[in-house]
Amino acid sequence: MSRLDSFIRRLKAQRACLDLAAHLVRDLDGHVLELGLGNGRTYDHLRQLLPDRKVYVCERRVAAHPDCVPPTELLILGDMRDTLPIARELLAGRVALAHFDPATGDAAASQALVAEVAPLIMPLLRPGGLLVSEPAIIHEELITLTLPESVAPGRYYLYRRVNCRSSA
Amino acid sequence: MSRLDSFIRRLKAQRACLDLAAHLVRDLDGHVLELGLGNGRTYDHLRQLLPDRKVYVCERRVAAHPDCVPPTELLILGDMRDTLPIARELLAGRVALAHFDPATGDAAASQALVAEVAPLIMPLLRPGGLLVSEPAIIHEELITLTLPESVAPGRYYLYRRVNCRSSA
Repeated sequence: MSRLDSFIRRLKAQRACLDLAAHLVRDLDGHVLELGLGNGRTYDHLRQLLPDRKVYVCERRVAAHPDCVPPTELLILGDMRDTLPIARELLAGRVALAHFDPATGDAAASQALVAEVAPLIMPLLRPGGLLVSEPAIIHEELITLTLPESVAPGRYYLYRRVNCRSSA
Repeated sequence: MSRLDSFIRRLKAQRACLDLAAHLVRDLDGHVLELGLGNGRTYDHLRQLLPDRKVYVCERRVAAHPDCVPPTELLILGDMRDTLPIARELLAGRVALAHFDPATGDAAASQALVAEVAPLIMPLLRPGGLLVSEPAIIHEELITLTLPESVAPGRYYLYRRVNCRSSA
């Protein structure tokens, strides 16, 4: 399998998980949060899947295709390790679907980032809200959901937030 | 259709055309020429498809994944508008399969580049040799081949070099 093959497989897994997540939140009020804009492809996909939601986007420095730049009022500019704690005021418990895929191309770097960022995402997710990610995220308030049929286990990750603490 | 959808479709068309081209040159001696390395995904695909061929790569500045950097002796470093005329000494009429996909994301820029580069690629292609490209290339010595069934017309391009001048 070439890098071209595995890249196509990864993008298809990403798309299938986002499509399923959008379907699963159809009856769940709340915003969408894209953690990293990049070239804007997944942002564009999310806003088309959920046209009636606000899609907030965290990004350090916008370098997306001009058609895929979010409106200023939905753009959270800066390092997300700094901005997510501030965004809590606006978004705490109000995000129905978050997507985190740093795609650093370096598994160790992605793991290190996710360890820092996951605890900052959690307070924003509403109970029952979904988190779609690559790499995996381990957190006591996240339960793993079944992946779309086309996606092999371990290729992409889909979670639902449950509130362990309040039910304990 | 989102930008994620169209990107996946484009990569699948690219792969299908490279796969078909590799099949079509199976009985045709000659090297492979990748015009632009980028992140190295299509280079990796080509070297896996045609493991017994030399895969030469033109690139201005190598920024590929470390696993996808060609050996020094197959790397033609510099602006291809400068290096292709020099490469003629080594490769004239010896390339069985060339791939050109600048993927600038800007159709006008890609068209301008292809107009400059196509006449420099032609002398390297052996008679019967294949050229896989996006965008389209118009040249009197190129005939258009039928695309793979999965690829819609106009999405990617596949040509065979014929020698109009010598047969005239």
